[in-house]
Amino acid sequence: MSVVPLLQQALGVLVDTDEDALELARSDRSGHAAAGRPLAIVHAERVEHVQETLRIASATRTPVVVRGAGTGLAGAANAGEGEIVLSLRRMAAIHEVRPDDLLAVVEPGILNAELNAHLASFGLWWAPDPASRDISTVGGNIATGAGGLLCAKYGVVRDAVLGVDLVLADGRLLHLGHRSVKGVTGLDLTALVVGSEGILGVVVGATLKLRRLVPGESCTVTALFPGVRAAAAASAAVTAAGVQPAIMELMDAPSLAAVHALLGLPAPTPGTAQLTIQTDGPAAAAEADAIDAILRANDGVTEVSHDRAEGERLLAIRRSMHAAMASLGTTLIEDVSVPRSAMPAMFDEIARIEREYGLVIPTVAHAGDGNLHPNFVFEGPETPAHVWAAADELFRAAIRLGGTLTGEHGIGVLKRRWLAEELGDDQWRLQREIAAVFDPLGILNPGKVFVPDA
Amino acid sequence: MSVVPLLQQALGVLVDTDEDALELARSDRSGHAAAGRPLAIVHAERVEHVQETLRIASATRTPVVVRGAGTGLAGAANAGEGEIVLSLRRMAAIHEVRPDDLLAVVEPGILNAELNAHLASFGLWWAPDPASRDISTVGGNIATGAGGLLCAKYGVVRDAVLGVDLVLADGRLLHLGHRSVKGVTGLDLTALVVGSEGILGVVVGATLKLRRLVPGESCTVTALFPGVRAAAAASAAVTAAGVQPAIMELMDAPSLAAVHALLGLPAPTPGTAQLTIQTDGPAAAAEADAIDAILRANDGVTEVSHDRAEGERLLAIRRSMHAAMASLGTTLIEDVSVPRSAMPAMFDEIARIEREYGLVIPTVAHAGDGNLHPNFVFEGPETPAHVWAAADELFRAAIRLGGTLTGEHGIGVLKRRWLAEELGDDQWRLQREIAAVFDPLGILNPGKVFVPDA
Ligand SMILES: Cc1cc2nc3c(=O)[nH]c(=O)nc-3n(C[C@H](O)[C@H](O)[C@H](O)COP(=O)(O)OP(=O)(O)OC[C@H]3O[C@@H](n4cnc5c(N)ncnc54)[C@H](O)[C@@H]3O)c2cc1C
Ligand SMILES: Cc1cc2nc3c(=O)[nH]c(=O)nc-3n(C[C@H](O)[C@H](O)[C@H](O)COP(=O)(O)OP(=O)(O)OC[C@H]3O[C@@H](n4cnc5c(N)ncnc54)[C@H](O)[C@@H]3O)c2cc1C
Repeated sequence: MSVVPLLQQALGVLVDTDEDALELARSDRSGHAAAGRPLAIVHAERVEHVQETLRIASATRTPVVVRGAGTGLAGAANAGEGEIVLSLRRMAAIHEVRPDDLLAVVEPGILNAELNAHLASFGLWWAPDPASRDISTVGGNIATGAGGLLCAKYGVVRDAVLGVDLVLADGRLLHLGHRSVKGVTGLDLTALVVGSEGILGVVVGATLKLRRLVPGESCTVTALFPGVRAAAAASAAVTAAGVQPAIMELMDAPSLAAVHALLGLPAPTPGTAQLTIQTDGPAAAAEADAIDAILRANDGVTEVSHDRAEGERLLAIRRSMHAAMASLGTTLIEDVSVPRSAMPAMFDEIARIEREYGLVIPTVAHAGDGNLHPNFVFEGPETPAHVWAAADELFRAAIRLGGTLTGEHGIGVLKRRWLAEELGDDQWRLQREIAAVFDPLGILNPGKVFVPDA
Repeated sequence: MSVVPLLQQALGVLVDTDEDALELARSDRSGHAAAGRPLAIVHAERVEHVQETLRIASATRTPVVVRGAGTGLAGAANAGEGEIVLSLRRMAAIHEVRPDDLLAVVEPGILNAELNAHLASFGLWWAPDPASRDISTVGGNIATGAGGLLCAKYGVVRDAVLGVDLVLADGRLLHLGHRSVKGVTGLDLTALVVGSEGILGVVVGATLKLRRLVPGESCTVTALFPGVRAAAAASAAVTAAGVQPAIMELMDAPSLAAVHALLGLPAPTPGTAQLTIQTDGPAAAAEADAIDAILRANDGVTEVSHDRAEGERLLAIRRSMHAAMASLGTTLIEDVSVPRSAMPAMFDEIARIEREYGLVIPTVAHAGDGNLHPNFVFEGPETPAHVWAAADELFRAAIRLGGTLTGEHGIGVLKRRWLAEELGDDQWRLQREIAAVFDPLGILNPGKVFVPDA
């Protein structure tokens, strides 16, 4: 029997071969689509469904693409010709919330925002907050090692996972990690799975480290600057002063203009860049005042709000970036990360690349942690060669400055060409061999992260 | 040529075959010693010395035991018959401190306290603070994934390392991680190296994530309880209330009595257990008051001090635990970790084991994170069989409660028998295969972490 009938025999109606669904599974939110169309989608509802799918895939050597909500920006969940899509979206239960131990045990398919809505009733939250929190799964967040707006102060996914249950390519189930805060028993495979983009195994459960909701008000400072370099320097000054904002987002002039246009707001003065900074906790107001003074000393024209709703409205401008870019054309969203002090230098590099390639590269940044999202906007579905050439320069510049190709989106297919350049050939090979220990047949997300052998 | 002359030819006076030095390298602070005596100690002073040693070791298939300061408590740095000791202690330079990026680049042999003394002049610190900070190396801290008194609030080593330079068993040098705060490029090998106890490679450099020194006063609350269970319940109540102490240390009655005896303090009322809690930061005084109220509501007889020196004096009682036990006999220091809510239950298990084995098991705990150090004290160099049997029950109880064998000391040789029980056979084999990718000949710290094949 070929693989689809085998799956249907074992999993019945969980196997989906609807043409439209298969078409959707070819791409994620990067806009990039895999070549060809996958064989079928398995909508797993229980751990055993995942195990059964992988046993069949192993027996038939069929590649499997693990998929959460498909909101990724690296093409890592895209499935093509001859591949099975294994969707975790329906495994969305919350098994346990423990306010005393500050942990929750969940299934991977739950949306980040759904989880946090539930946790709020306990006065708790899970800190990772990608801008996609309303539409991305916790399993996807774990598999990408997601970051977000709040991570300079409250950490990234890597800091917020105590353990994961992982199904290996051959269908075996492993329990990694533990429920205690501390533990150094053997190699830290939980940490290795975070950010592994579906190549080591399928996350079918997770024990998450929670925080208590932050009491007190939250204050928002917005500041306008005559240019992006001034804004970057001001944000570096905030960090250097030792104040810890919860959120510090930077928008360059083209980004700010595009969002204002999308939202029907008055156009900003040409060239104007913006910082939006939020403080929270008991010292929120005092910190906002300190930040306000630093920004003004750095040529910022500032405004401070103590109103939470107004703060959300101000941040909505930043959160509309993705939509604003999409309204202009096809977008390649980049994700370089550099040491905070190198942010102004990185903006200089972007300006240089814009000049050399005759491009405008609207850029926003999680300025509190040095993570920049330069956007390349173009016509049509294919990323043009000169855009890739410009992106190539961008990556090299970030690595030169002590940074990395990707701060939070991952490698997927879109950045695999550059992976060996950052890691070095020795480390690249070592990483591939480690992946092969988990998945000796190479059926899990093949072609993702590592460029396949020729 | 046999291996020692080869080393001498290549490394000259860095090769040490002094009998006393070799004898010392047989054991760490666990009291356990390896069988036989190592061949030689190489005192590496530069990365190339490490590489050269490993090339010779690979060529001759000679086992290498990596060693920092030898303060470990799991026998992980103990070297025996036929082994080379590779000491990193002389590689103790601080290459770079960046207050703006909150990072430092260091060599592995620097002592934790030396590093922090240097960082203090920049208003910075590296948060991991094992009680051994004055005598243990940063490389050893990384290789064990060390914790410490402050880690409930400020994190463990795993949270404080951005990158490591690693020399593989064959002498190749890899640069893992990056200088940016965020990064998800490929598999997170930096996290995998943390806690790997010298079996994956030799840490020859590290990029550390720093914090700013905490401004404001620090307050200390001590509380006496009629028994350890009451103290454990009170500490759980503090955690559950959402106050975040910097330090929360618990001492049971035998521990407290032993330390008082050692320090010549008046003997505590029999059965009395103690909590020592420190708060810091701008809200230190308010938090201390809140904690004081919680402890009193939980039958604690409390005292609050706002004086930093007095606070240090109070904590010195806890810090004298190791010496107090050593004064009583040979000590096996255990290190189980459980979810915080399970601390009272874990103390019940310890009481049961004491009854069943006719033992007294003085126990202290990092109560803020559920990490307990039960101490077995006995005569003579060998751990008696009934002590191992009692320890065995202890480990099983911790695992049953959702915890782990070791919260911060590691597996080494002393706990390798129990590793497969916690991990499960499948995960145990997977971990061994991963280690083999790094070290295919199995020459790095063989027999540590994994029970060797029969
Ligand atoms: C508007 C918008 C804003 C965004 N903002 C951010 C942001 O601020 N920060 C950020 O980090 N990302 C952001 N992203 C990217 C994306 O949302 C994240 O990468 C998210 O974590 C992906 O989750 P997902 O469920 O959609 O995963 P998918 O896209 O379905 O999959 C992503 C990767 O994870 C793997 N995977 C998914 N589930 C599992 C599982 N259970 N087990 C094993 N592997 C699995 C897939 O194979 C793939 O490799 C944004 C995306 C959009 C569209
Ligand atoms: C009084 C006392 C109190 C202690 N308190 C604590 C505590 O609070 N928290 C805690 O976590 N531990 C504590 N310890 C245990 C010990 O100090 C720590 O494990 C420490 O991190 C070991 O550092 P070291 O330099 O002595 O390493 P060593 O003992 O020399 O080595 C420990 C392990 O690390 C490996 N290793 C060392 N250096 C390197 C390197 N550069 N590259 C690769 N591998 C390396 C060794 O091979 C070995 O596996 C305490 C010990 C004592 C004696």
